[in-house]
Amino acid sequence: MKIGIVGLGLIGGSLGLDLTRLGYHVIGVSRQLSTCNIALERNIVTQAEVDFAILEQTDLIFICTPIESILPSIENIIKYLSPQTIITDVGSVKGSIVHQGTQLWQNFVGSHPMAGTANQGVESAEFDLFKNAPCVLTPIRNTSLTAMETVAKIWTSIGCKMYNSTPEIHDRAVAWISHLPVMISANLIYSCINNGSQELVKLSQNLASSGFRDTSRVGGGNVELGLMMAQYNRYELLNCLKEYQQNLSKIIENIEQEKWTVLEDILTKTKEERPNFLK
Amino acid sequence: MKIGIVGLGLIGGSLGLDLTRLGYHVIGVSRQLSTCNIALERNIVTQAEVDFAILEQTDLIFICTPIESILPSIENIIKYLSPQTIITDVGSVKGSIVHQGTQLWQNFVGSHPMAGTANQGVESAEFDLFKNAPCVLTPIRNTSLTAMETVAKIWTSIGCKMYNSTPEIHDRAVAWISHLPVMISANLIYSCINNGSQELVKLSQNLASSGFRDTSRVGGGNVELGLMMAQYNRYELLNCLKEYQQNLSKIIENIEQEKWTVLEDILTKTKEERPNFLK
Repeated sequence: MKIGIVGLGLIGGSLGLDLTRLGYHVIGVSRQLSTCNIALERNIVTQAEVDFAILEQTDLIFICTPIESILPSIENIIKYLSPQTIITDVGSVKGSIVHQGTQLWQNFVGSHPMAGTANQGVESAEFDLFKNAPCVLTPIRNTSLTAMETVAKIWTSIGCKMYNSTPEIHDRAVAWISHLPVMISANLIYSCINNGSQELVKLSQNLASSGFRDTSRVGGGNVELGLMMAQYNRYELLNCLKEYQQNLSKIIENIEQEKWTVLEDILTKTKEERPNFLK
Repeated sequence: MKIGIVGLGLIGGSLGLDLTRLGYHVIGVSRQLSTCNIALERNIVTQAEVDFAILEQTDLIFICTPIESILPSIENIIKYLSPQTIITDVGSVKGSIVHQGTQLWQNFVGSHPMAGTANQGVESAEFDLFKNAPCVLTPIRNTSLTAMETVAKIWTSIGCKMYNSTPEIHDRAVAWISHLPVMISANLIYSCINNGSQELVKLSQNLASSGFRDTSRVGGGNVELGLMMAQYNRYELLNCLKEYQQNLSKIIENIEQEKWTVLEDILTKTKEERPNFLK
């Protein structure tokens, strides 16, 4: 089986490392010749070129570009492919990708492997990035079952735990557990630096410890990624933010009215429920 | 120098371990005889008893009880002390402690060492818990300078980085960087479990990864501690929550109106500023 990878960054590169190790013939495409060369040197790919034409012999292609380039990449490569070739992607938002992707290419399946590190680029590619990572396939009505099975088989072979969902439920779920945290975390940092006098900001900075560090981590991370979440999952993220806002108003109300038993119940519930998100 | 410790939990116990190692004569008081025995066995203290009378020979006393017991503990011990004895505490809120504490005992100095682990109780006491931890002294107008110097010397000797602040600025700073994070983090978990269908909650739980884990950590922690923050720092916490809420409304507005450059500026700022809180 010949597998193509378009985009050799952290995700595409790590995918390549695992697939070449498993013995697949992996064909990489990057816009940068230097990236192709690094990918060849590190055995991330079997072949690599800047030209999409190299993909014409592939059976399955992973589009691993930033989200805004996924649909343009599909448009660019399909003229080289046989109709049996399966295309999937790794985008973290699916609604805006899967319907149009399937229109462009019948054998398209949306994937979202939930894996990553703080690093970017082919240099940061690593083995086993996907081991034990959840990976969601997001079929729609006319998605090919055979294509789904093939894609699931490959993700499973490199360690992913597979889930199926509609693109819409997927986007809602990631809005809650991934995109909302980025915004509330960013707003924590933003609020703490705009909270009054220099003396207060300075003392806050000196006293901040592990609680602040953890709660602020994703809000002080990759800017492009945060922006992309808001742009591509805008509708679902807005719903989450507004519900979050309403719930926060209730917490404020409980503290204002000194309803300590209600607040205690909420904190007890959150302590009990958190482990269900950490399996 | 004889040092007393009232309350032999994680903080009092760890303090005792460091102080006995430094050669001080450490006298511990706990309401539980079993705690006294463990403290003696582990060399956390030189002497330990359940009776406050044992403190009468001490030069300096650390009150390491939960916050609601700090003032009652001072009331209980002062009849045994000579007027030169210095009392300090380790409470995480200072406004409600320092003014009344100083009225009860002229030689009172408020301290707040920012250290801890997820564990509680004398069994979890550990060496070097305070190493490199910030510790704030919160003098008021009639605080004795000599008492402050003595307390600062002891905290410094076990590794603390010392800061001085008014109780009010201290409480505002910890509301921002410690108490607010707990509430927004708890509200994240609370919102995610009340966000709709079982299918959505289940998929959210399956897909949640490190971003959710970190952002939700302090909101799924010690219930009593979270409740205590809200009760004892209610005024400052409410101010933070309301400012946070207003800033979140602006973020929502930017996403609604697709003001991507403004959102990008905010995320760029938060990425730039976060390291200033992590020294």
